[in-house]
Amino acid sequence: MAASSLDVVGIGNALVDVLARTDDAFLHAQGLVKGTMALIDSARAESLYALMGSGIEMSGGSAANTIAGLASLGGRGAYIGKVRNDQLGAVFAHDLRAIGVRFDTPASTEGPATARCLVLVTSDAQRTMNTYLGACVELGPGDIDQRLVASAAVTYLEGYLFDPPQAMAAFRRAAEFAHGAERKVSLTLSDPFCVERHRADFRDFVHNHVDVLFANEIEICSLFETKDFDAAARAVRGECEIAVLTRSAKGSVVVTRQDTVAVPAAPVAEVVDTTGAGDLYASGFLYGLTHGRDLDACARLGSLCAAEIISHIGARPESPLKDLAAKAGLI
Amino acid sequence: MAASSLDVVGIGNALVDVLARTDDAFLHAQGLVKGTMALIDSARAESLYALMGSGIEMSGGSAANTIAGLASLGGRGAYIGKVRNDQLGAVFAHDLRAIGVRFDTPASTEGPATARCLVLVTSDAQRTMNTYLGACVELGPGDIDQRLVASAAVTYLEGYLFDPPQAMAAFRRAAEFAHGAERKVSLTLSDPFCVERHRADFRDFVHNHVDVLFANEIEICSLFETKDFDAAARAVRGECEIAVLTRSAKGSVVVTRQDTVAVPAAPVAEVVDTTGAGDLYASGFLYGLTHGRDLDACARLGSLCAAEIISHIGARPESPLKDLAAKAGLI
Repeated sequence: MAASSLDVVGIGNALVDVLARTDDAFLHAQGLVKGTMALIDSARAESLYALMGSGIEMSGGSAANTIAGLASLGGRGAYIGKVRNDQLGAVFAHDLRAIGVRFDTPASTEGPATARCLVLVTSDAQRTMNTYLGACVELGPGDIDQRLVASAAVTYLEGYLFDPPQAMAAFRRAAEFAHGAERKVSLTLSDPFCVERHRADFRDFVHNHVDVLFANEIEICSLFETKDFDAAARAVRGECEIAVLTRSAKGSVVVTRQDTVAVPAAPVAEVVDTTGAGDLYASGFLYGLTHGRDLDACARLGSLCAAEIISHIGARPESPLKDLAAKAGLI
Repeated sequence: MAASSLDVVGIGNALVDVLARTDDAFLHAQGLVKGTMALIDSARAESLYALMGSGIEMSGGSAANTIAGLASLGGRGAYIGKVRNDQLGAVFAHDLRAIGVRFDTPASTEGPATARCLVLVTSDAQRTMNTYLGACVELGPGDIDQRLVASAAVTYLEGYLFDPPQAMAAFRRAAEFAHGAERKVSLTLSDPFCVERHRADFRDFVHNHVDVLFANEIEICSLFETKDFDAAARAVRGECEIAVLTRSAKGSVVVTRQDTVAVPAAPVAEVVDTTGAGDLYASGFLYGLTHGRDLDACARLGSLCAAEIISHIGARPESPLKDLAAKAGLI
């Protein structure tokens, strides 16, 4: 196996977040389930946007956030995802490249616009997401660059990719390429509703292809159809090499065939917006993993990055994570 | 004179801000003058954007920020400005309407894209702006809705409108309509370089058409070609009914024919980004003025709104200014 020239290549739905504050009454009136992601079509995206308050636009996308966080830690990242050649597509591409992430997936030149996620943030810092997939549905196996995947120590896939129909094939091809080059495959379950929509596919994919799995408490319980976190943690043991289970303020638990490592959440002065918490946890963990750290250190790096992202609006770091991690003595 | 159904109609360059953090070395390397606004063409906008770090997008535009702030205080505002029918144009329109501002100027359907302002924020909280005027150059006298202008107690014009060639005519027409309906005309000088580019026109316009003038220390000194603030304050007295001169941390001074009212700056825990400080000062002042407050109260409202906007990134309020003003006992 050749030395990897990249730490992580992320593959995901390339989208721009539109973040606005709202209240519980609005979520209720719109039939939205707090803390989850709902898929919406173009018409609903227009109508919901018209009802939302004024917002800010920031590049988002779960795996893209993770790779941006990895780059902010000083890691070497690349990203594969589909935007259109429109204004928001240019914003998305710029924001990855500006932080040193390689992003070469050709933008589509026709068809739906660049994807948007309407993110509604309530005063309890919870985020409720509504995703119009737009150009993401154009991502297909032909977009997976074999040399790029083979050059990365870890290929990181977001579960949201189970939604656009062609992406699943892209997904499987990426896993083949990665394992063919003796690299690791990592997956995040992304969202409990997403797990419900595709549970059998997720179970199969985790069992057969995933080395490093990320999931939060609700997602892992959904995957194994249990309400008991400990039961879910037992169920996942051995399904993949490393299962990383995040539990918000209760910290995280790393489960391997032999070991269980629990790490507390990093302290946060004020939780402002939880958008991107899981994404940035993965940034820190994967940075640690690709830099030879033990699981405890990986989890602490994950917690630190998650703590930064929830201290402000938006899912991209405001301050260089490398400096924060150095200050905390973690890198 | 009929009762006004609107407090303020703002007319300005309709643009979306792209805010990114940077350092002095970058400003120096790019030949940018900290704290000012430079006009850039499309090619320069592309090349500068490519060099900037990852950013966030927020609706901006000086007069639009002022009207958004007025609406956030509970005032009745409208806005006239030109976007294109593209993604950023839709964002701009949404963010005004979402806060209750009337915005009906038809978007252009061909020609340049919606304007952008590349805002570089340094660690001293200063903002350095680079504006690509885009669709703003299409704003002309035909876009000035006479009934709308006649229905507003104040027509508020930004000095930046002296830059796009047709806007000057729009500007003069708006002033005519306002005075024809016995309304007030207000102007902000916007930027010292803008004053330098158009000093004679500004002097003439202030003398003949402006009732309420806003300027910061550097702008008013530039207008009267002096380095001495007190000399500039003496020079402006009597040129218009009310001259409102802002001096950053030194507070503000309101100059009328008979009076001079000085008000301190409102306290700010941490100054994060000064983008929009002058715009939001004008929101507060004009809200007070159109609600029958005395000049001291108007200036205190201005200071309070400016203090909110400089406590975070971006030039649109994060929390409802009405609540802040009520808490401070100002409304």
